Amino acid sequence: MGAYQSSTDEVKRRLDAAWSAREAFGSMAPHQRAECLRAVANALDASRDMLVTQAMAESHLGRDRLVGEVGRTTFQLRLFADVVDEGSFLRVCIDRADPQWPPGPRPELRRMMVPLGPVVVFAASNFPFAFSVAGGDTASALAAGCPVVLKAHPGHPVLSDMTAELVSAALLGAGAPPGTFGLIHGDDAGRAAVTSEVIAAGAFTGSLGAGRALFDLAAARPRPIPFFAEMGSLNPVFVTRQAMAARGTAILAEYATSFTLSAGQFCTKPGLLFIPAGSIDDAGLADALLAHQDGAPLLNGHIQEGFVERLHALQGQRAVRSVVVGDRADATSPTPSLLATSAATVIADPDAVLFECFGPASVVVDYASDAEALRAAEAFGGQLTATVHGEANDDQAEALVGVLADRAGRVIWNGWPTGVSVTEAMVHGGPYPATTAPSSTSVGTAAIERFLRPVAFQSLPDRLLPPALQDANPLALPRRVNGAREGA
Amino acid sequence: MGAYQSSTDEVKRRLDAAWSAREAFGSMAPHQRAECLRAVANALDASRDMLVTQAMAESHLGRDRLVGEVGRTTFQLRLFADVVDEGSFLRVCIDRADPQWPPGPRPELRRMMVPLGPVVVFAASNFPFAFSVAGGDTASALAAGCPVVLKAHPGHPVLSDMTAELVSAALLGAGAPPGTFGLIHGDDAGRAAVTSEVIAAGAFTGSLGAGRALFDLAAARPRPIPFFAEMGSLNPVFVTRQAMAARGTAILAEYATSFTLSAGQFCTKPGLLFIPAGSIDDAGLADALLAHQDGAPLLNGHIQEGFVERLHALQGQRAVRSVVVGDRADATSPTPSLLATSAATVIADPDAVLFECFGPASVVVDYASDAEALRAAEAFGGQLTATVHGEANDDQAEALVGVLADRAGRVIWNGWPTGVSVTEAMVHGGPYPATTAPSSTSVGTAAIERFLRPVAFQSLPDRLLPPALQDANPLALPRRVNGAREGA
Repeated sequence: MGAYQSSTDEVKRRLDAAWSAREAFGSMAPHQRAECLRAVANALDASRDMLVTQAMAESHLGRDRLVGEVGRTTFQLRLFADVVDEGSFLRVCIDRADPQWPPGPRPELRRMMVPLGPVVVFAASNFPFAFSVAGGDTASALAAGCPVVLKAHPGHPVLSDMTAELVSAALLGAGAPPGTFGLIHGDDAGRAAVTSEVIAAGAFTGSLGAGRALFDLAAARPRPIPFFAEMGSLNPVFVTRQAMAARGTAILAEYATSFTLSAGQFCTKPGLLFIPAGSIDDAGLADALLAHQDGAPLLNGHIQEGFVERLHALQGQRAVRSVVVGDRADATSPTPSLLATSAATVIADPDAVLFECFGPASVVVDYASDAEALRAAEAFGGQLTATVHGEANDDQAEALVGVLADRAGRVIWNGWPTGVSVTEAMVHGGPYPATTAPSSTSVGTAAIERFLRPVAFQSLPDRLLPPALQDANPLALPRRVNGAREGA
Repeated sequence: MGAYQSSTDEVKRRLDAAWSAREAFGSMAPHQRAECLRAVANALDASRDMLVTQAMAESHLGRDRLVGEVGRTTFQLRLFADVVDEGSFLRVCIDRADPQWPPGPRPELRRMMVPLGPVVVFAASNFPFAFSVAGGDTASALAAGCPVVLKAHPGHPVLSDMTAELVSAALLGAGAPPGTFGLIHGDDAGRAAVTSEVIAAGAFTGSLGAGRALFDLAAARPRPIPFFAEMGSLNPVFVTRQAMAARGTAILAEYATSFTLSAGQFCTKPGLLFIPAGSIDDAGLADALLAHQDGAPLLNGHIQEGFVERLHALQGQRAVRSVVVGDRADATSPTPSLLATSAATVIADPDAVLFECFGPASVVVDYASDAEALRAAEAFGGQLTATVHGEANDDQAEALVGVLADRAGRVIWNGWPTGVSVTEAMVHGGPYPATTAPSSTSVGTAAIERFLRPVAFQSLPDRLLPPALQDANPLALPRRVNGAREGA
């Protein structure tokens, strides 16, 4: 890992090319830009088998999972194409001149969103398609009209180059200017991009340490830029007393399935399961893992080292006991580990337990009372997700939902956080440390908003306005006029 | 100035109170929160004469201007009340469960915006009402449901206390919880607030130096927070050859009026006017200032010192000549100064000329060719505004509009940047260094978006959903359902 490094010259060429592309790409008509996204999706679909084979070799993920992930990735690209075609994302808004406007005569103002400029995207290792070269950050940045400089993840460099070649060719073929997409390798290259004057924003999916370091670089620039880092989450799950009594065994089985899925290598892996004290003994907890004895390969050596380190840190806590000690934790295909502690421990010393252990391990936490469960919920910082399992007319659930909604980007009822649907309403974000930008999402169509800024045009003659704002509405965009939706 | 300093204890009490208020205030029904904003507006209107008298004493601004500014401020509060009542700002969006969703079964997802939490607002000196205690940042933060800790500007501490008392009482009277609004004095207090764990976001209007320092503090926190600083602008105005030929004298007279308005103490003051070389001599330029010989008082000693320093820095540049040297530049009521240079200078050494000189001074810049004017436009960093004066069928204007829209939050045609209308389409923002957050505006109804974050609820039973998301739509909010506007 890490053997691939773009040279300083190569990085500069990619950055300069992105800068050169920005005007032409940013001003493409929406339907043309939508075709660019569809061309990328088509190119990936057409080369799916080749891509999946390479991804299997570099990521150790299974064929079915990877085939599904390509499907998710191309669906996402096409969904953003539809968003661009539909045009609401431009947020066109026209306030006509009004001499009677109460605080003083109002000039005509027309507002739209414009692209921020070239974006550097840092790929993740755990989704070699959906959060990598042509993943959600790339799709949303391109949809917004921003050229992308993609910092490849060292976990799958060959796949990254293959994908990038397809993306670049598809964009060119669909009429995007050269430089709209470029790939770079290596941490030095990534830092050079984040601190480059031509870059207007950054997006990242990965660890808290790396995300924060890049955010700090972005904020410390002479000209600071927004940096959207999604840095993982503990994704606590709370099971109410009623739910545990009604369907505890089923919940535990689902929990075991969820936290071991893809060897626990999801930023939405449930890291802690809160259950009522005394509802099950350790033998019962261990039984839940019986169906997950085989283990699954970790993505790469870096992930494996981090997993072992974090797992040992958890196992070494005095107030944490090991319910199931996974086999081969320090090998490439560890079997799952299950730990247990008490809510009192979480409350008394959150830092001892509340850190992400990326991989096949999770912690069961028993709470002595409803109040203690609530206090434990309050101990969490920002989360991507938080889940409650409850029953109808379950008083305990209501307070939990309130506390968790205050901390998470997504609150789930009687389900599991793994699996992030790509829709309009999805929020894959949350307060720090889940992300560096609580007002944003990195999955779902609202992700496009991260890469846009508003511009208002005051009293411009029609011919000088961008087509999106012209009176005749040549792009047939949804618009708000004088505070109301046009045509409504 | 600066004699008022909140004690450490006082600051802590204000911060703790804001934290305590956040749940109750954040979950008020929209129409109740709207009433809070209207109560504040009514309280200010009812005490207008008292407030204006105090503002005259502390800011040296005239009565008419201040009476108008109170009107603008209360209009703004009521406009945000209407925004809250209307409910679109919550961006309610419901994706119903869809087992056929292409990448995999989609769960039901319901999204809305929720308040970020307590906001620290830094008041400005040049608008003792509209950008101060009950100004735009306060109005938009309260509208979003965020308690406000207001760091008073040392230029009008007594007015700040008077206003804060009215605001607090009005909020309490309208049912907001205690602590929804609190005032603090002093730079130490401001820094303590920006770095306080209870603060979720910051907003600022003022100088580049102070804004950047606070942004850096916000970004360097263990938990970074968004910090929305509006830090001023040069607001270049470009006059095309055709426009200069057709109405040069009128344009120069309007320019003189705009840059001397309120002694040039606007962040939208036109700092540079680009005109064709040879179109007017220095005597002609000086004539434009004949109607503005009286001078006007500066806001305070700090502003005056900064003005003198910046003016001397401009006058000291080898390639800058003084066309009109204002009287009493180092006194409290300087008369306006007019400087001149060439576009070649701006292009060759932007840093020598392109800095804000807050006060009654501006620079006329002559350009030798259309291409040189464009290159000069390209030398500018982020701006709040940029203006073009042109004629019908004016080819020169089109390229200028394109370059300037790339750099500014608002592009103005045949007008002047001073005067920022409070409307839905207004953008008072722009790329750095105009602001630290290019995607935001600090004036206009979109300013509310700075203080909100999205939360998605997955598969929750109706009774556990916030009222805004419940099926029956008890708050009668505009909603999008399955990608389309409900009822459309």
